[in-house]
Amino acid sequence: MTRLNDRLTAMEQHNALLEDQLRQLPLPIVPAFRAGDGVRAVSFDATGDVLSTADAARVAEMFPQTTVANAGKVLHGGAPLAQRPSGKRVAVLFSGGPAPGGHNVVVGLKQMLGSDNLLLGVRGGPKGLLNGRLEPVTDADVAKIRNSGGFDYLGTDRTKIKTAEQFAKVREVAVKNALDAIVIIGGDDSNTNAAVLAEELFANVHADGRGVQVIGVPKTIDGDLQLGDLLPISFGFDTATRIYAEMVGNILQDSRSSLKYWHFVKLMGRAASHVTLEVALQAKPAITLISEEIAAKKLSLADIIEQIAQTVVSRAAKGIHHGVLLVPEGLIEFVPEVKSLIDALNEVLAHADGFAALDEAAKRAFVAGKLDAAHAALFASLPEYIQDMLLADRDSHGNLQLSLIPTEQLLVDMTRARLKQIDAKIPFATQCHFFGYEGRCGAPTLFDAAYTLNLGLTAGALILAGKTGYMASIGNLFGGGVPLAIPLAGLLNIERRHGSEAVVIEKALVNIDAPAMQYFVSRRAEWAQADLFASPGPRQFWGPVASQVPLSVALNRKADDVLFRFGEV
Amino acid sequence: MTRLNDRLTAMEQHNALLEDQLRQLPLPIVPAFRAGDGVRAVSFDATGDVLSTADAARVAEMFPQTTVANAGKVLHGGAPLAQRPSGKRVAVLFSGGPAPGGHNVVVGLKQMLGSDNLLLGVRGGPKGLLNGRLEPVTDADVAKIRNSGGFDYLGTDRTKIKTAEQFAKVREVAVKNALDAIVIIGGDDSNTNAAVLAEELFANVHADGRGVQVIGVPKTIDGDLQLGDLLPISFGFDTATRIYAEMVGNILQDSRSSLKYWHFVKLMGRAASHVTLEVALQAKPAITLISEEIAAKKLSLADIIEQIAQTVVSRAAKGIHHGVLLVPEGLIEFVPEVKSLIDALNEVLAHADGFAALDEAAKRAFVAGKLDAAHAALFASLPEYIQDMLLADRDSHGNLQLSLIPTEQLLVDMTRARLKQIDAKIPFATQCHFFGYEGRCGAPTLFDAAYTLNLGLTAGALILAGKTGYMASIGNLFGGGVPLAIPLAGLLNIERRHGSEAVVIEKALVNIDAPAMQYFVSRRAEWAQADLFASPGPRQFWGPVASQVPLSVALNRKADDVLFRFGEV
Repeated sequence: MTRLNDRLTAMEQHNALLEDQLRQLPLPIVPAFRAGDGVRAVSFDATGDVLSTADAARVAEMFPQTTVANAGKVLHGGAPLAQRPSGKRVAVLFSGGPAPGGHNVVVGLKQMLGSDNLLLGVRGGPKGLLNGRLEPVTDADVAKIRNSGGFDYLGTDRTKIKTAEQFAKVREVAVKNALDAIVIIGGDDSNTNAAVLAEELFANVHADGRGVQVIGVPKTIDGDLQLGDLLPISFGFDTATRIYAEMVGNILQDSRSSLKYWHFVKLMGRAASHVTLEVALQAKPAITLISEEIAAKKLSLADIIEQIAQTVVSRAAKGIHHGVLLVPEGLIEFVPEVKSLIDALNEVLAHADGFAALDEAAKRAFVAGKLDAAHAALFASLPEYIQDMLLADRDSHGNLQLSLIPTEQLLVDMTRARLKQIDAKIPFATQCHFFGYEGRCGAPTLFDAAYTLNLGLTAGALILAGKTGYMASIGNLFGGGVPLAIPLAGLLNIERRHGSEAVVIEKALVNIDAPAMQYFVSRRAEWAQADLFASPGPRQFWGPVASQVPLSVALNRKADDVLFRFGEV
Repeated sequence: MTRLNDRLTAMEQHNALLEDQLRQLPLPIVPAFRAGDGVRAVSFDATGDVLSTADAARVAEMFPQTTVANAGKVLHGGAPLAQRPSGKRVAVLFSGGPAPGGHNVVVGLKQMLGSDNLLLGVRGGPKGLLNGRLEPVTDADVAKIRNSGGFDYLGTDRTKIKTAEQFAKVREVAVKNALDAIVIIGGDDSNTNAAVLAEELFANVHADGRGVQVIGVPKTIDGDLQLGDLLPISFGFDTATRIYAEMVGNILQDSRSSLKYWHFVKLMGRAASHVTLEVALQAKPAITLISEEIAAKKLSLADIIEQIAQTVVSRAAKGIHHGVLLVPEGLIEFVPEVKSLIDALNEVLAHADGFAALDEAAKRAFVAGKLDAAHAALFASLPEYIQDMLLADRDSHGNLQLSLIPTEQLLVDMTRARLKQIDAKIPFATQCHFFGYEGRCGAPTLFDAAYTLNLGLTAGALILAGKTGYMASIGNLFGGGVPLAIPLAGLLNIERRHGSEAVVIEKALVNIDAPAMQYFVSRRAEWAQADLFASPGPRQFWGPVASQVPLSVALNRKADDVLFRFGEV
């Protein structure tokens, strides 16, 4: 027994059986980087692709140096680099919410930089950069974090670097640490940050006039940072959706085993519905709501509830009193009338002195008197707890914290009310779920593990090749894989709000005309009427199904298989 | 693209990549049953173990036939059966909540009965038995459900068979279907049902005086149906705890990545804390509450909150503002003063005419006036929404529906209140989770898949050997595995309530003196003070970690490894 006790204690600190084995798992490397048992640096050449947005002219004014240097051209990694630099000092940081695979970006970066360049890890995200919390990334560190989930090696935060004071601090840290480059692993906001920093640090940071190179790496479980064949998907999306799809598949099995519950499942994913669509493609539940489609079709909340209620009714007619519904976290903002109501409420509340002091019934009465008839009717149709949430304090920007609204419960309650009108005898027992945090830090799938290792190699190769203002990517996922560099300035749009300008990388929403959505639309009526679901199960790291890719990515990239062939020549 | 669309559509109805591969996965069979490529029936002989409870005398009166026939003796499968019967007609049903591995019990049963006996599946649990919903289990059925999670092949329900009218119905169905045996796959209640039916159907069911054999199979994710070396664990526990442990491990990684949340996680498992203890052993979070220990130490709610708050404070002193707490679903009933308060409230409410008509404030005031000082003080210390729940309508038995109380939220709110008293500046941002339904129907781990296949083989072998009133089990899990038969009457206790007697199999609670709990106690102070957690990750079906067993089972059985060696000779 003592021996077993010791064995269990040895599993502490990331030494569970699986964690130990995953560290040893070999990963494919794209052909461009392969050199014997190791990796090699490459030069980057222009592909035919040139990126720009409708705001290109204004962006060129705001980002003169990186715009001129990169000219919007997408690059791909090619021939071995003629002269491989050494002595470079590179900082890497995580930014925003964690996503599976982040650790392998660091592993790939370290491997490409090799022992003759120095990699420094920034503790605690952008805030850590401002505070100069840099420490060398050792060989022991990368051996330990290889193929593990989470950002816990370095930590992360959501600080946005945008003020002159912050820029000065970054310069100071860069000088103090003699940095040649910074790699920012993050989502759309963080890569916007990377674009801004690349311009800001383009030159004249160090005494000799040199700048600091800045490279972004596309992370987000939400899948809203993607760009067709040039960036098929952000890293983390595959792992997160596989985790959610397992849970949803398990619940589907449960619904058909217990034969008594409708499960309403809300899935993380901020604005876009990519996560929900992917999980639906994998598990095929009875009902899936896609925000972008609801917005495009201008559906009302009553329309949505009617669709749900009619599905419950038609299944009940066949004796099926169970089912699973998927709803994306961001749904409520995509229902045009609800968005309009929230805007109207914001307007009313902005001019309602003493409102906070009223009790809840008085608040509701006050507001009802100020809204137009359509808004007032919609407001009155909502459950009281939702009315109260809509009248709650706004955040510091005057916005409602929509993420707090329990959309899944709202849909349950409104569907129940509608069912009572249709036929009070239809059974409708429910369970609600929200899957989010469970998916952000799981051990990366083989796809995400390999993808991120190669993204790290690409980021390192871009630094060795002297590039700045690019986001690393890997193209040709269903072939051997090609390292790509996407010019960040070519992705920027200008958002004008309250008279001021802000640059943003626009979130990629679900394209309702793309193959993934079209396939879903072609099957969903069948899924609604009978239990045709699958239970995709836990992701595997060994055996015959380990190389699966997201189904939506395979569909949208018009692949002929659902397995990646990354690293094959 | 059309080819990929077709491929995706082919995945419907349980044909996800993993599901298709799992159907092909070979499983070990215990030596006693192995015969070439197939299986053989065996005779069952007495081991030295004899089972009885303190209520044995009364049980013998109530169960005269099975008590005499089985004499409390535990049997083990041994030599090949001299004369293998054919033409037997056997019904199998799921009872109670689903658990991973149930399908493989059916697969094993079918395999042992072979083509010369008939297996009938009962649709919709015990209620389906009463209604005679029996259909043959075909070879195609077992090929399809092999190694899949859930009870969805047959469905389940929670009907308790106990009235004379129900017994008559079962006899009628048994005669109509010419049944020789019934196999009930279920938990403690369902196996109590099996014991009762075995006695009831012992003889004189059919015209020739024959009875119907009844065999139970020990299922429950809760782990509260176990009996030392004779029944190391019920099936489903391993898979469910591995699913929860992955989620908790992912959230631990997230907590240390995002560096800002305390996650309070409630885990399914009714009364006992086995699930929570196992997940704690696997993931090693900062705080884990074990109900049985709290009851044994007679801790108050304030004691528990103080422990939590002090851990938050001491971690904060080291700059750690995150953590994970695990709480078993049944906690609240194990806190002696809360149990006492609920009893007192039940008493007050039983004699409070017109109470339901009062508004909530008036209800609280009314009750406060009727409680003694200690109860009133405890009641007043609870958040208002909990007070309201404690005053809500009782169920038809006059009991409070404790499962509706959001224990995790209660602990968050009371800890927050206590922290404000200690030091209002300590950060305490929180997220709450409940994991339950996700774990009941996942694809069974290799352990559960092999265990249930062999439980099915054992149940089948017991039927072929002419036994009744036994529960199938497998002993010697860390060796090759031995089929066991546990006499159900030897497990029964008498529960006297409201003047009437009911037989029950007592739930096995966590033994706080057993090795698993002792090991947990020896490490938890360290886990509380620093992040020593592991992230056990998704269960694997191939590769080096596929044969892991529950750590609590390995500890309590004094195994020298955490891998099972089932089926090895």
